[in-house]
Amino acid sequence: MKELAQLVNSSDSVLLFPHSKMDGDAAGSCGALCAALRNQGKKAYIFCDEVVPANLQFLVKDFITDDPDVFDVPGLCMAVDCGELGRFASRNETFLRGNRLACLDHHENGGQFEDAVCYVEPSSASTGELMLQLLLEMGVEITPFMADALYAAITTDTGDFRFSNSKKETHEAVAMLYDFGLDHAKVCNEIYDNERMEKLRMHSLAIADMEMIAGGKANIVCVTQNMLAESGAEMWETEGLIDTMRTIAGVEISALLKEDAPDKIKVSLRAKSYGEVLTIANAFDGGGHKKAAGGTIRKSIGEAKALVKDAIEQWFVAYDVQKQEEI
Amino acid sequence: MKELAQLVNSSDSVLLFPHSKMDGDAAGSCGALCAALRNQGKKAYIFCDEVVPANLQFLVKDFITDDPDVFDVPGLCMAVDCGELGRFASRNETFLRGNRLACLDHHENGGQFEDAVCYVEPSSASTGELMLQLLLEMGVEITPFMADALYAAITTDTGDFRFSNSKKETHEAVAMLYDFGLDHAKVCNEIYDNERMEKLRMHSLAIADMEMIAGGKANIVCVTQNMLAESGAEMWETEGLIDTMRTIAGVEISALLKEDAPDKIKVSLRAKSYGEVLTIANAFDGGGHKKAAGGTIRKSIGEAKALVKDAIEQWFVAYDVQKQEEI
Repeated sequence: MKELAQLVNSSDSVLLFPHSKMDGDAAGSCGALCAALRNQGKKAYIFCDEVVPANLQFLVKDFITDDPDVFDVPGLCMAVDCGELGRFASRNETFLRGNRLACLDHHENGGQFEDAVCYVEPSSASTGELMLQLLLEMGVEITPFMADALYAAITTDTGDFRFSNSKKETHEAVAMLYDFGLDHAKVCNEIYDNERMEKLRMHSLAIADMEMIAGGKANIVCVTQNMLAESGAEMWETEGLIDTMRTIAGVEISALLKEDAPDKIKVSLRAKSYGEVLTIANAFDGGGHKKAAGGTIRKSIGEAKALVKDAIEQWFVAYDVQKQEEI
Repeated sequence: MKELAQLVNSSDSVLLFPHSKMDGDAAGSCGALCAALRNQGKKAYIFCDEVVPANLQFLVKDFITDDPDVFDVPGLCMAVDCGELGRFASRNETFLRGNRLACLDHHENGGQFEDAVCYVEPSSASTGELMLQLLLEMGVEITPFMADALYAAITTDTGDFRFSNSKKETHEAVAMLYDFGLDHAKVCNEIYDNERMEKLRMHSLAIADMEMIAGGKANIVCVTQNMLAESGAEMWETEGLIDTMRTIAGVEISALLKEDAPDKIKVSLRAKSYGEVLTIANAFDGGGHKKAAGGTIRKSIGEAKALVKDAIEQWFVAYDVQKQEEI
């Protein structure tokens, strides 16, 4: 961390690289560092060739550039909240043009860059917490804007402190941010109270259509093109829907099916505690982890739903048999 | 706090009084103290004559009694998260039978008991934080169960750290709870992932029927008896619905109308920042505060909706006129 702080402090022109599909952790961490660098009188930008989600725009202000030639040769190119070239593939060429390379990340696979100064701490719940450490190590004066941006990074990556990655150090970092002028209510309003009505309507249509299966231990929701047309929402706005499905008492496994095209159904599966959704995803050549898996089914939404439903119910039958045998 | 800790430590039989309509803060704070007292080998109960909400039952375990005669004369009766007799009216007689009286609360109007040892700190976001201080002052060993119960108190009363009452000390208290074995993910699962499917369905029907008014600056939702019948939900399960309405970008004022009976419509109004909903509630003899107000309209749901809609739109017209004049 000391080496990284020295490198950043000694660089006069800095390009920051958040990952593709920028989230609150990437945007907040980049925003805080970019503000710090500009306050030091340096030239700094966040290099991004995608649209920033509306609720995150306050974090990156006018820091964004999509011009790969904003610097002839950037003094420092730094990957933030991502640790491999594949996480920002369309911007690799510019990244590698940096005179020096760096990386700050909290993902397991972080730090996959040659000749880069990397600080990667997978035990940290967010890159925002690591960015706070970096700013302190750099000796910069942390402003209320930076405190807000780092809070945004932390609250989004921990599911508002609910996910299992949240821990003692997370709350200690937030407590410290108040000393620098954090206005958490303002940040939460920007981040969480910025939904499109169309998205809420689509979620409502989907939940109204939800089916409980496996005796209430699982639920399944299909978002069809018809629902998008009826609500005016877009398919990416299904974000958060599976989390709502999981809030129902007794539900162990949730399945969300998205009709991307009449014969292209994207499936997301989540388990709460004992469920193993990777086994279920294998039934249709999907992949993932034990608690979060998915895949694509090239059938109609009705056929896909029947297939997933069947795989889930079979998994519970097998699970019950195994439990019986153990007794 | 020292005096209160000494009083609790010197009492052999203790009855705890949460307020009516027990919430997470009352349940978690009572649960933690009751566990501490029993671990000290004392007789302690939470006296409550209402059904405890399903998602809070893990906090009060077998501590609840509805028997006013569980003690002939309770050594200590202590109001928790409430500061006046009116907050647990049906249990006043038993409370006043206590040999000694006490109160731990964070409400503005706390400590309204004669001859009671009261610790009231309105600047605290939750009674849970004060209960942590009390347990530390009492010198008890804080167990993982107590840590979980206090976390439940804090997360629920701060809206998962989003409300404006949350602050530095709130996060410092949570950081400390990890030292005592807090499992926040387990608590969040119990508290937040314990919804009835019927409730979610009702919220969906209501949101699908939501009307945006005043050029998108307000929204209005009616929950009818038909929606309850269609979803299987009960009217009290509208809890949280107005918060969802508020998450829509650009919405300043939200109005929720509940059809309790064909000619009895309960109205809830919320404003985010500059809106003044008390003025709007006055249009139908309601009351409340600037940012949260309501009342009852004795008309049909259709008439009530027209009335509220009109009052909201008129408020925005008046607000715009006033703003114009200021310029």
